Amino acid sequence: MRKFVLLFRCRDRKGIIARISDFIFKNGGNIVTADQHSTDPQGGYFFIRVEFVMEEEGFGLRGLVEAFDPVGREFEADWKIYDCAESLRMGVLVSRPDHCLEEILYLWNAGELKVKIPFVLSNCEKHRKLVTGYGIPFYYLPADKDNRRENEILSYASGATDFLVLARYMLVLSPEFLVSYNKDIINIHHGFLPSFKGTDPYGQALEKGVKVIGSTVHFVNNLLDEGPIIAQEVEHVSHRDSRQDLIAKGRHSEKKALDYALSKYIDHRIIRYENKTIVF
Amino acid sequence: MRKFVLLFRCRDRKGIIARISDFIFKNGGNIVTADQHSTDPQGGYFFIRVEFVMEEEGFGLRGLVEAFDPVGREFEADWKIYDCAESLRMGVLVSRPDHCLEEILYLWNAGELKVKIPFVLSNCEKHRKLVTGYGIPFYYLPADKDNRRENEILSYASGATDFLVLARYMLVLSPEFLVSYNKDIINIHHGFLPSFKGTDPYGQALEKGVKVIGSTVHFVNNLLDEGPIIAQEVEHVSHRDSRQDLIAKGRHSEKKALDYALSKYIDHRIIRYENKTIVF
Amino acid sequence: MRKFVLLFRCRDRKGIIARISDFIFKNGGNIVTADQHSTDPQGGYFFIRVEFVMEEEGFGLRGLVEAFDPVGREFEADWKIYDCAESLRMGVLVSRPDHCLEEILYLWNAGELKVKIPFVLSNCEKHRKLVTGYGIPFYYLPADKDNRRENEILSYASGATDFLVLARYMLVLSPEFLVSYNKDIINIHHGFLPSFKGTDPYGQALEKGVKVIGSTVHFVNNLLDEGPIIAQEVEHVSHRDSRQDLIAKGRHSEKKALDYALSKYIDHRIIRYENKTIVF
Amino acid sequence: MRKFVLLFRCRDRKGIIARISDFIFKNGGNIVTADQHSTDPQGGYFFIRVEFVMEEEGFGLRGLVEAFDPVGREFEADWKIYDCAESLRMGVLVSRPDHCLEEILYLWNAGELKVKIPFVLSNCEKHRKLVTGYGIPFYYLPADKDNRRENEILSYASGATDFLVLARYMLVLSPEFLVSYNKDIINIHHGFLPSFKGTDPYGQALEKGVKVIGSTVHFVNNLLDEGPIIAQEVEHVSHRDSRQDLIAKGRHSEKKALDYALSKYIDHRIIRYENKTIVF
Repeated sequence: MRKFVLLFRCRDRKGIIARISDFIFKNGGNIVTADQHSTDPQGGYFFIRVEFVMEEEGFGLRGLVEAFDPVGREFEADWKIYDCAESLRMGVLVSRPDHCLEEILYLWNAGELKVKIPFVLSNCEKHRKLVTGYGIPFYYLPADKDNRRENEILSYASGATDFLVLARYMLVLSPEFLVSYNKDIINIHHGFLPSFKGTDPYGQALEKGVKVIGSTVHFVNNLLDEGPIIAQEVEHVSHRDSRQDLIAKGRHSEKKALDYALSKYIDHRIIRYENKTIVF
Repeated sequence: MRKFVLLFRCRDRKGIIARISDFIFKNGGNIVTADQHSTDPQGGYFFIRVEFVMEEEGFGLRGLVEAFDPVGREFEADWKIYDCAESLRMGVLVSRPDHCLEEILYLWNAGELKVKIPFVLSNCEKHRKLVTGYGIPFYYLPADKDNRRENEILSYASGATDFLVLARYMLVLSPEFLVSYNKDIINIHHGFLPSFKGTDPYGQALEKGVKVIGSTVHFVNNLLDEGPIIAQEVEHVSHRDSRQDLIAKGRHSEKKALDYALSKYIDHRIIRYENKTIVF
Repeated sequence: MRKFVLLFRCRDRKGIIARISDFIFKNGGNIVTADQHSTDPQGGYFFIRVEFVMEEEGFGLRGLVEAFDPVGREFEADWKIYDCAESLRMGVLVSRPDHCLEEILYLWNAGELKVKIPFVLSNCEKHRKLVTGYGIPFYYLPADKDNRRENEILSYASGATDFLVLARYMLVLSPEFLVSYNKDIINIHHGFLPSFKGTDPYGQALEKGVKVIGSTVHFVNNLLDEGPIIAQEVEHVSHRDSRQDLIAKGRHSEKKALDYALSKYIDHRIIRYENKTIVF
Repeated sequence: MRKFVLLFRCRDRKGIIARISDFIFKNGGNIVTADQHSTDPQGGYFFIRVEFVMEEEGFGLRGLVEAFDPVGREFEADWKIYDCAESLRMGVLVSRPDHCLEEILYLWNAGELKVKIPFVLSNCEKHRKLVTGYGIPFYYLPADKDNRRENEILSYASGATDFLVLARYMLVLSPEFLVSYNKDIINIHHGFLPSFKGTDPYGQALEKGVKVIGSTVHFVNNLLDEGPIIAQEVEHVSHRDSRQDLIAKGRHSEKKALDYALSKYIDHRIIRYENKTIVF
């Protein structure tokens, strides 16, 4: 059996689920899981994720896409079908802090992050040993604020990856880069957005005297730390916690949020909608 | 438009979702939300909750049930359809502690617990003013361990209620009562099951020196505090917390777990399965 | 035995704890609990809360304050001693939402909020029955944005209360009011500050698509929702949660944060420091 | 300046804090932090942790211990003074699962676990590369249920370590081992004790259908998973979570609980009391 995932978004109206499930059934498939959401049954948007299996000798991905095309047109939908046998290729960008990188590589090595990692790219040489120890190519690119070297990043990333994860990458990617790369970029921000954007969110949290800190995983868009939020995690803190304590506590929530968000993304469980996300 | 909910459970096989959604579509309905779960695509169980709307002039509940009956038979399913316009009737049993009762009445009065409450029954007279202040009949029944007065409870409950909630009712209901009443009974236990069953769970927690306490909402069955768990909530505690502190902290988690579980139950979002629950 | 609490803040230097504990010991007292915090052992600030008991026939509060005065001067400290037998008088201001008011009155009635409540004041008549049912005076003052009627609030509050709690009071108090009242005012804000200040924080959270919502209890100062934070609580949410769901989920965190903050305040466990709080 | 920590436990009575702080002050020291707890001011137990600094040319640890001895005798106390410049030596035992080991080594390498690690010992050869990559000796000891090889463990551990951590070590240590080793042993159990002791707690949790899973760090004693609890962490789960999902979610709470507990232990912040812990 081959497994596929359909992500599908359209204006809500009658009969969408019936039409999709009928399509799958008629083509010899079986729905494994279906998750669905409507913003408003009268005139809102409709979102569905369907995970289904088909006989080995049936459609391949290409045939499936062709066969489904009329259904998509019928509902004027945005949709995409993924073949679960094809792992996404995830490029990793990282600066000095290494705990998110460690978490990603650990999970990947344990077979839990079902992605290919074509490379880890960093403006910090020190991660080389860790990365190459896992048999993953490491690209050292000493980018900084004055020279972001985005063309080089692009040359590594555009053909070789399906999406990028910024696993604590400290340089802001330019709008031009986003346009040129033109695929999803997922960022972990070590603050509880929309509070504490930009630099040193733990320092900002300490200064403000908050009693809970948080981490946010979001898609990158043109606005700094403003893209659609995928996941957030929090930790209680007190006046006893120093900046160093916040950093240490925050690492747990950063790793947990990133782990969760990447798992969801890799399983094709996220649909973007306005500036938000549906996470099935 | 009239809204209905279908809860459906059967052995997993191909085409269930297609068949159900086709049924709804062909009968002029529209699926608002569908939630589905499979324990194992090969040979396991399949569960689905479908919330759908139909034209006012279409089927009533009885007609719908008749029309759906062949579908249910086809899959040898356990299923039930609920008319969302018909609120469930919830009988409340409570002993001395009143915070769960207060929470329930507050939510009910605010229009958030969409149930009818035919009565509150207690072996503690003191709740009368609170209950009757909300315009709800209050039955004082001084039951205790030696005389549980279950026949009287049954005479109040069996015709007038669709389910019972034990909002901190301290007497164990007998197997005979459960058989006679023969509908769902939901209990809030102020301990983190399966730890700390029975009497004084906060005292047990203190004695054991745990660092997290919890509350558990579950269906009642013949075994003390062993029925299928619906919801659990937790609170961190420390050596500084006295028994009184645990009780106070625990109240938040009791109310939150009960609020959540009752909302889910009333919206027909819970399917029992072996000794567990699917909560959509 | 009589119980007292000392709150004490000064520049850090050697021997403060020795001096204070020696004072208590020499005067026949016994320290029950001491909590202490230093921002930085070299040149920072030092904070201590000491709970101690003294013989009934010993000092009264006034004598104690006089006797301790030289110690305070020696360290150029800000300090205050509270007689635990004297409950604080807490005035309550509330607008339409009633869940925080219910929580406060419930806890007070259960003997857990050890305060006097001289009155509940509201610009919403509907709370009268609830409040007077507890035997507490209710003042209806139909204030709104155009006429905040702060002089009337002041006339009720200034002599009769030791502090005010804004239990979801929707009108901003003016700087003039703060100066005139000149005692602590505690506010519950139904958003995760510093995000989502001002009006409709749940709507703002929904619009932003956050995955965690929160509540914040803070002291009121001249800047809207900017005063020192005492407590924060959070709830995970998802794309399925409507504005109404956020409000319902948020109520749990609002009540929990407020319960916690008021307990700490009433037990004299909070010391303000810059724009932050030490909560022992 | 040299920093020391005093842990002190005795029957509660008047003047303990005064006596201790006076001792430190008279000997030229300054209290940095003091945490204290009483189980019951009348006749209960009293616990204190005092962190203090003394001049470099003052007492060494030995002199300090001698000088303090009369104070300890006066109150018939159990007490110990630690020189903060002397890191504890932590031996690590681990079986197949490596996430706790990874966490420990990461934190240690980042300078956050201020311990010496004389060795990692495992009955699983595969960790060698990871461990020796950090420059830490790795001892492979293929122990199993039939041959626990405790004498060999003891020969490695007894002279070289101050305490042991079982970072998911799957063999139960015998009472004889505990007696012979005679120092603290800290275990991470991947279940929410007192529920789900022994083998496969995630499988037990799945079977039971709980909605929250947890991890527990505790001191090892003669009873399986019954020793004094230091820390517990929890994760919400649902019917959608497979055994594999529970394991993956649980890793976050295991690492967080272990990180917390080890930090507290290493900073001399834990006092054992009956079968519980005071964690300052």
